[in-house]
Amino acid sequence: MNYAGYLSRAAGTMQESAIRKMGAVSTGIPDVISFAPGYPAPDTFPWEDFREITHELLAARDATTLQYGPTRGFRPLLDAIAGVLRGRGIDASPEELLVTTGSQQGLDLVARVLLDPGDVALVELPAYTGAITAFRNVQAELAGVRQEADGIDLDDLDRVMARLRAEGKRVRFLYVVPNFQNPTGLLLAREKRHRLLEAAHRHDILLVEDDPYGELYFTDVADESDTRPIKADDHEGRVLYLSSFSKTLAPGYRVAWIAAPSALTAKFEVAKQAADICTGALDQRVVWQAIARGVLAAQGPRLRAVYQHKRTVMERALRRHAGDLLTWPEPRGGFFIWITAPPSVDSAALLARAMQHRVLFVVGSAFFVDGTGANTLRLAFSAPTPERIDEGVRRLSAALHEELEHRHQGVGSAGTGSTGPGGASRGTVTPIG
Amino acid sequence: MNYAGYLSRAAGTMQESAIRKMGAVSTGIPDVISFAPGYPAPDTFPWEDFREITHELLAARDATTLQYGPTRGFRPLLDAIAGVLRGRGIDASPEELLVTTGSQQGLDLVARVLLDPGDVALVELPAYTGAITAFRNVQAELAGVRQEADGIDLDDLDRVMARLRAEGKRVRFLYVVPNFQNPTGLLLAREKRHRLLEAAHRHDILLVEDDPYGELYFTDVADESDTRPIKADDHEGRVLYLSSFSKTLAPGYRVAWIAAPSALTAKFEVAKQAADICTGALDQRVVWQAIARGVLAAQGPRLRAVYQHKRTVMERALRRHAGDLLTWPEPRGGFFIWITAPPSVDSAALLARAMQHRVLFVVGSAFFVDGTGANTLRLAFSAPTPERIDEGVRRLSAALHEELEHRHQGVGSAGTGSTGPGGASRGTVTPIG
Repeated sequence: MNYAGYLSRAAGTMQESAIRKMGAVSTGIPDVISFAPGYPAPDTFPWEDFREITHELLAARDATTLQYGPTRGFRPLLDAIAGVLRGRGIDASPEELLVTTGSQQGLDLVARVLLDPGDVALVELPAYTGAITAFRNVQAELAGVRQEADGIDLDDLDRVMARLRAEGKRVRFLYVVPNFQNPTGLLLAREKRHRLLEAAHRHDILLVEDDPYGELYFTDVADESDTRPIKADDHEGRVLYLSSFSKTLAPGYRVAWIAAPSALTAKFEVAKQAADICTGALDQRVVWQAIARGVLAAQGPRLRAVYQHKRTVMERALRRHAGDLLTWPEPRGGFFIWITAPPSVDSAALLARAMQHRVLFVVGSAFFVDGTGANTLRLAFSAPTPERIDEGVRRLSAALHEELEHRHQGVGSAGTGSTGPGGASRGTVTPIG
Repeated sequence: MNYAGYLSRAAGTMQESAIRKMGAVSTGIPDVISFAPGYPAPDTFPWEDFREITHELLAARDATTLQYGPTRGFRPLLDAIAGVLRGRGIDASPEELLVTTGSQQGLDLVARVLLDPGDVALVELPAYTGAITAFRNVQAELAGVRQEADGIDLDDLDRVMARLRAEGKRVRFLYVVPNFQNPTGLLLAREKRHRLLEAAHRHDILLVEDDPYGELYFTDVADESDTRPIKADDHEGRVLYLSSFSKTLAPGYRVAWIAAPSALTAKFEVAKQAADICTGALDQRVVWQAIARGVLAAQGPRLRAVYQHKRTVMERALRRHAGDLLTWPEPRGGFFIWITAPPSVDSAALLARAMQHRVLFVVGSAFFVDGTGANTLRLAFSAPTPERIDEGVRRLSAALHEELEHRHQGVGSAGTGSTGPGGASRGTVTPIG
């Protein structure tokens, strides 16, 4: 049977995630060093605490621990999340909270509840691919807003809004990651957060604030006050705030949340009923206990130190091996370094060559909704050990020098199917092996 | 702020699940006996096996156990699922399998990949509300096909197809639960399964076969061969088969799967990337080990005996307390007894009265896409103990007799907001307390 005729329009345009694709590629290359996925470092997971907590929960045999549960979430966890939010300056009642099966589900619910086909969602240039895909999967149009060194360019937001309104488009919201943005690592300046809130009010759009990395600031260049969520100063109910335990506890537990005005949260809850009924009961209880026992609080300083060190190692290696060729904004937190290569370099071609050197990254163009970014790439320093980071950057640099040399010789790029800058392969990846 | 203007059309029409709503109602009534949710009995969960397995998995500290994992699923689990399917007569390669976060996610992925707004999905009359909602949430139209004592009425299927085709509708698939259907408990006859497959071919529609209860046949009136999936005889690739570990292991682990032609499975995988990235890594490993260690296999005979006994208890109580008033098809497996009350009884009014007697069920109209079923109700015997089943039926019978008496006296029904048969409250429930 040929199934093409059975697919929905949405399915016809669904695209495989560039990040997920690299996961599949990486398993085919022995001794590969992957800077592709934004995975937390597994040696930071509080394994022993999880083991103890789970042992106690399963020994207690409370029926609800392994049963279906409320779609809204396990009430003690909701209360614990309210406590986490208070620590970030956000006051949220249980009516304003919904547990989600990872923040990706939060993005999907936002898309389904707020976007009709043809509606516009604004995203940063570049923006997290998971958000782009969630919004595209409901047939929304995406428009990009530029970023500067201190985050989103508010003048460009005004220009984009003016253009879209002139075109008669219905703009529903702006999706932003103010803290250590994925993929750029940028931190949105404090005063800009206030101005962004004003701009959202002025343009009458909602703000979808995604904050998975806020607790992972690097104390040598930032502090907690730099990460204050926009939602903390939202007195109008214009901000939908998403956050997660995937980066602070472990992503194997699929537990995240949305904090939003109660009228919208009620809609997200109904949408979630049909999406997966409820988030895993045991997962929610493990996270709840990790908060109650102080495990989460203890993770903060430890994670900040670990990722700050890895950032330092990667930056040092980049400067040493390719400092004359690559530029990047210094990350003040989070998981990523965002690289701009010389204009002649197409990162898809570079990736094909990098795979031959057993190192992976995500091509930058995957994060741009406007077709740009051909010479950019995202490096995640979060998962590999410092030694592997250093070795991986050495390999990447070798691939880069090789690619530049071949370009100068006019030989073209390595890798079947890669067509160089501006070519049809932009944003796609040619798997090898 | 008023958010009505920000909602998508889909969100505007999203309806709260009648089953989920009863969960919220039940927590407000002390000593309530709920026949509403199709929850498995928690004393059948293999608690000690789960504790041991989890202990070992977390002690081993394999990084992938708590990390993000492949969207497709944990490969050893996929292989184990292929083994489970072979036991049901289905031969599926890993390319044809996808792990889902509960079967509800499978229904959601099916809806998103196969249905455009205005497309028609066929469902049984009555049908599982979670499927109805998943299909409606992508703005599909639903058309119902009648059921007989031995399952779906194939003549009615032909009539419905002829009518829809004459109206120029695009019909994408028929959703069926052949084994101990939710909500009717009906078992689709063996020979009808073959004829249904032929009908699907003839009408050129797909079959979405949902099989959460197949292993829970009652040995006094059925055997394993009665439950052979339609998919087992599908040589054309027309059947998408969904099943789950929620009823055989525990729903607290959100682990289920789809077995479908590889071209469709690839689309479901891409849709799942944007829905929740991956199903919980630890949950998948626990289920995998429960299969590998024979825990799942040991559950089968035990669960069949437990639920068969509960069915017997509920039927006996129904016959004793209300055998002159209520009719139902004898369940040959699964979780449910499907009740038809006298025509004058509106089950929404009965529910309002039943709540005063501290017993809950789901109104039958919630399962009908054609507005019928006002005098029907679904009773789940799966979760309560035999003693509570008996007591709950006694309470339900008292409520029923009271309701009938008031009707005969022309007093109308109990419960604020209930308007009796054919009234506006049909299919909705008035919470009390």
